[in-house]
Amino acid sequence: MYKIVFMRHGQSAWNFENRFTGWTDVDLTEQGRAEAKTAGSILRKAGFEFDLAYTSVLKRAIRTLLIALDEMDCMWLPVSCQWRLNERHYGALQGLNKAETADKYGSEQVHVWRRSYTTPPPALNPDDPRTSYAAPAYRTLSRDEIPLTESLKDTVARVMPLWNDVIAPQVREGKRILMSAHGNSLRALFKELDNISDDDIVGLNIPTGQPIVYELDANLKPIRNYYLDVNT
Amino acid sequence: MYKIVFMRHGQSAWNFENRFTGWTDVDLTEQGRAEAKTAGSILRKAGFEFDLAYTSVLKRAIRTLLIALDEMDCMWLPVSCQWRLNERHYGALQGLNKAETADKYGSEQVHVWRRSYTTPPPALNPDDPRTSYAAPAYRTLSRDEIPLTESLKDTVARVMPLWNDVIAPQVREGKRILMSAHGNSLRALFKELDNISDDDIVGLNIPTGQPIVYELDANLKPIRNYYLDVNT
Repeated sequence: MYKIVFMRHGQSAWNFENRFTGWTDVDLTEQGRAEAKTAGSILRKAGFEFDLAYTSVLKRAIRTLLIALDEMDCMWLPVSCQWRLNERHYGALQGLNKAETADKYGSEQVHVWRRSYTTPPPALNPDDPRTSYAAPAYRTLSRDEIPLTESLKDTVARVMPLWNDVIAPQVREGKRILMSAHGNSLRALFKELDNISDDDIVGLNIPTGQPIVYELDANLKPIRNYYLDVNT
Repeated sequence: MYKIVFMRHGQSAWNFENRFTGWTDVDLTEQGRAEAKTAGSILRKAGFEFDLAYTSVLKRAIRTLLIALDEMDCMWLPVSCQWRLNERHYGALQGLNKAETADKYGSEQVHVWRRSYTTPPPALNPDDPRTSYAAPAYRTLSRDEIPLTESLKDTVARVMPLWNDVIAPQVREGKRILMSAHGNSLRALFKELDNISDDDIVGLNIPTGQPIVYELDANLKPIRNYYLDVNT
């Protein structure tokens, strides 16, 4: 039996301001940092040890991971930052306030963008300064690997190659892995691991800063999963 | 021509308390953190970009690196933590106050331990709780790879395989590397790069938190090196 631990990053500045974030590289708030510290403390107290860690290339997830590793006294742990674990790209909505967007497009339309599996929000124009083309974190990618918008289905499609080709083989080797990622990159993974339907996955809410343990069988099918909290 | 940037970690709690540190995993002081932030700011303002970073498995060097990378807005940079970049192991002196040690053993003897190239301090007893045998950061090492004391010559012997087998080939591939390490692991590297004599290397002082740029020719022989400072 294998185990892997996931966590969703703590509160970011734009979570707090109720703005669509996506690939925008927004930092954690003080509360987000405190959530990360608590997550590390929970893992330490529960006796978890890890061999390596994964996160996205977005600083809210990286910082959540680094704060947790610091709290676990294992800053030396190998950390791999992977763009495929980034949050779902939110297209032309990135940076907009969620309430204002609902006023502008109607709350029903916004609900579709947020909760449909296959419908992406309007794409960024390639010339929009909000694209990720110029960001150094993506300089090894080709232009068509960098999205201008994504549905959750698109997110699944770019998360899973990393799982299948890199992470799953390491889990099978017995590597104990901690992953810090985002609401939608975790949804993408959980959808595939737990075989959740397109309709159900969009309703799955993953709390921030709370480590979730997946126990997997020899075929990496989940046996059970459970959240760790301060009372564990 | 190639470039590589080194920096020595900022002030640690035991630098401040004037205690021998070696492999003891002592954290940075507030001043040490400020030095790291300044180092990152200097590198950013000088326009440096990196492809990957190296550090030891000791948190004072790791934190120095992470603070600098944060300041350079590249937390996503691949970081490799390597025990071979650790500080020189200080044997049975680890944890002792430098002034008290001089009182006990005589300042001449302490001077030899600190400044001889080949004489190690007295070794830790293998049963001493100060050994690194139980530390998770070294769990993949065999027992005889974990020192109980080291001369600077011993430090050179364990630093150089990492340089020769891993880092030098990456420099030749054009990878732009930032390394955060320790007074003696950097001395070890500089001795070999600059062909400094056994007598001279022990007198080489490397300031903390100040990035030093090495420009290397096609054979990785140094053309020149220079410190970057806030006025660069």
